[in-house]
Amino acid sequence: MSAERNRQVVIAKIPQGALQVSDFEVREVPVPEPGAGQLLVRTLRLSMDPATRARISDAGHPGLLGVGDVMAGSALAEVVTSLEPGFAPGDIVECYTGWQDYSLQEPGAVATFDKLGTLEEHLSIYGVSGLTGYFGMREVGEPAPGKTVLVSAAGGAVGHIAGQVAKQLGARVVGIVGSEEKGRWLTETLGFDAAINRRGEKLSAQLKTICPDGIDIYFDNVGGEILEAVLPRMNEHGRVVCCGYASQYDVAAPVTATRGVPALLVGKRLRMEGFVVMDYYDMKQAARETLAGWLAAGQIKLSVDMLEGLERAPEAFVGLFGGDNRGKRLVRVAEPAVNAG
Amino acid sequence: MSAERNRQVVIAKIPQGALQVSDFEVREVPVPEPGAGQLLVRTLRLSMDPATRARISDAGHPGLLGVGDVMAGSALAEVVTSLEPGFAPGDIVECYTGWQDYSLQEPGAVATFDKLGTLEEHLSIYGVSGLTGYFGMREVGEPAPGKTVLVSAAGGAVGHIAGQVAKQLGARVVGIVGSEEKGRWLTETLGFDAAINRRGEKLSAQLKTICPDGIDIYFDNVGGEILEAVLPRMNEHGRVVCCGYASQYDVAAPVTATRGVPALLVGKRLRMEGFVVMDYYDMKQAARETLAGWLAAGQIKLSVDMLEGLERAPEAFVGLFGGDNRGKRLVRVAEPAVNAG
Repeated sequence: MSAERNRQVVIAKIPQGALQVSDFEVREVPVPEPGAGQLLVRTLRLSMDPATRARISDAGHPGLLGVGDVMAGSALAEVVTSLEPGFAPGDIVECYTGWQDYSLQEPGAVATFDKLGTLEEHLSIYGVSGLTGYFGMREVGEPAPGKTVLVSAAGGAVGHIAGQVAKQLGARVVGIVGSEEKGRWLTETLGFDAAINRRGEKLSAQLKTICPDGIDIYFDNVGGEILEAVLPRMNEHGRVVCCGYASQYDVAAPVTATRGVPALLVGKRLRMEGFVVMDYYDMKQAARETLAGWLAAGQIKLSVDMLEGLERAPEAFVGLFGGDNRGKRLVRVAEPAVNAG
Repeated sequence: MSAERNRQVVIAKIPQGALQVSDFEVREVPVPEPGAGQLLVRTLRLSMDPATRARISDAGHPGLLGVGDVMAGSALAEVVTSLEPGFAPGDIVECYTGWQDYSLQEPGAVATFDKLGTLEEHLSIYGVSGLTGYFGMREVGEPAPGKTVLVSAAGGAVGHIAGQVAKQLGARVVGIVGSEEKGRWLTETLGFDAAINRRGEKLSAQLKTICPDGIDIYFDNVGGEILEAVLPRMNEHGRVVCCGYASQYDVAAPVTATRGVPALLVGKRLRMEGFVVMDYYDMKQAARETLAGWLAAGQIKLSVDMLEGLERAPEAFVGLFGGDNRGKRLVRVAEPAVNAG
């Protein structure tokens, strides 16, 4: 072990606007030695999550990082050395490793891994992003036959699951994406009823054409001007599921206000509701079984978009904000040494 | 009848900012003659409703008025002449009379009056504003013991009822008003637990002091910067009842966006929900009986703020936007000729 080095992707400079690959750099340091009660883990798959962007330049973030810090991120990892009786080498755990090969973990900060599928499935459909799409759509959006559901960032990790969940629950589902080609993927591969290219014609005009009877449920991953264009097209008693506001994560001057609030909420009796997936974790097992059943039956499709190698993490992450990914974006850092997942 | 004149308060000019009494003028015209199937009614009590402000200068309003038009408003009125078998002289009806002594009504546009209390009670606690406070608080806000409820425009027609309803349902209730003296009225007469003077020290600081455990339910009558100050003080899973946005009804350049939306909704899992009272009218009778029981037992207090005489309608209405009123503001135009309510 001592001969091995720990590669780390660290913050090289703080971006003043959109993040660049050059804002990161790779360094090598010795592999750390676990102390009493600690685990040494090796990163297998890094999860790329847009909300982590706030760790780099949101001054109010409790976990704000600075130049030279290892970039934050969650991952599946394998226990290499355990000084804690509950864990053995080869155990696969979920934890915040950051962007590096090796990290020390406290046992309370790692989650064990109820094996249901592949590593990729556990970091996507059975993990935070898949369950966010599932619970947010089902429990907050409450789609039903006869309802029109709109999903933004519909080709993303959460969106492509959220849209398919709505479809399974009988709704008509329209997705907003960043290209014509991704739109075709939604309709031809994922079974969405229609797609809207936000880089195409004016969004409000497209919404009128593609949702002529209005929108009953809007699953909002992006906030900003897309949300503002959608609100006037909502039907009375419609619901906006506030899942995220990715349009504001990677800009120099985030727009922090939304036009039409509260006037349209009053006029149209709309409900806007934020949620976080952990609030539904008491139903996690049942949700995973439902999703596993749909997957096995081919009723929904999971898309994992994996880049190879830790050194590609910056490129993988920066690309999220341009909408490069199809489904859940991961970085493969290593394969398990003991039992492959 | 033919000797009598019909006084009308008409729009004299379109205000470019805050409404003034001088934007109205009184004229006299002959009392109109009902045609076949019409009713001639005499206005008894005019209801002063802030949202009517939009009729004067909101270009997008479907009922936009112009110079020379009779100002719009709802009222209780007495049938003077009926050419319709379902109505007889002396019947008391609720309808949109506008600000005038006499008006012609179509039978479909008047609501009959299930007598439960005085004319004033029917235009306030048993009418739109009281039921708005009741249903909005109970059905959308869902207060309960242990919850902190905040009400803006808490001394207004809707707010003073909404706050007292929350109190009856066991919550701790704090009201925002425009003066120290009105704050004392809330706590000493209406039984609110605390009051905040929005013209006093910085609102966010007052909210911290007076709601040290945060806010669970915010009943929002005003929107604007008060809403923006409240959102960061909301507790996780809190609810914002979007009843109105009176802060923007009488300004030259309404602020149409709310800071903190959707970011705080996501971070705090908040729900913001608009409603209109008509959606709950299937429960209207039960609501009136509950309110009547509380009133009779002295558990809640109704405040009606009545100005005398049609010619005072402009002053009564303009004063709403300065927060002059205590409770429901009405204008007494006439007494019933037949049976006093």
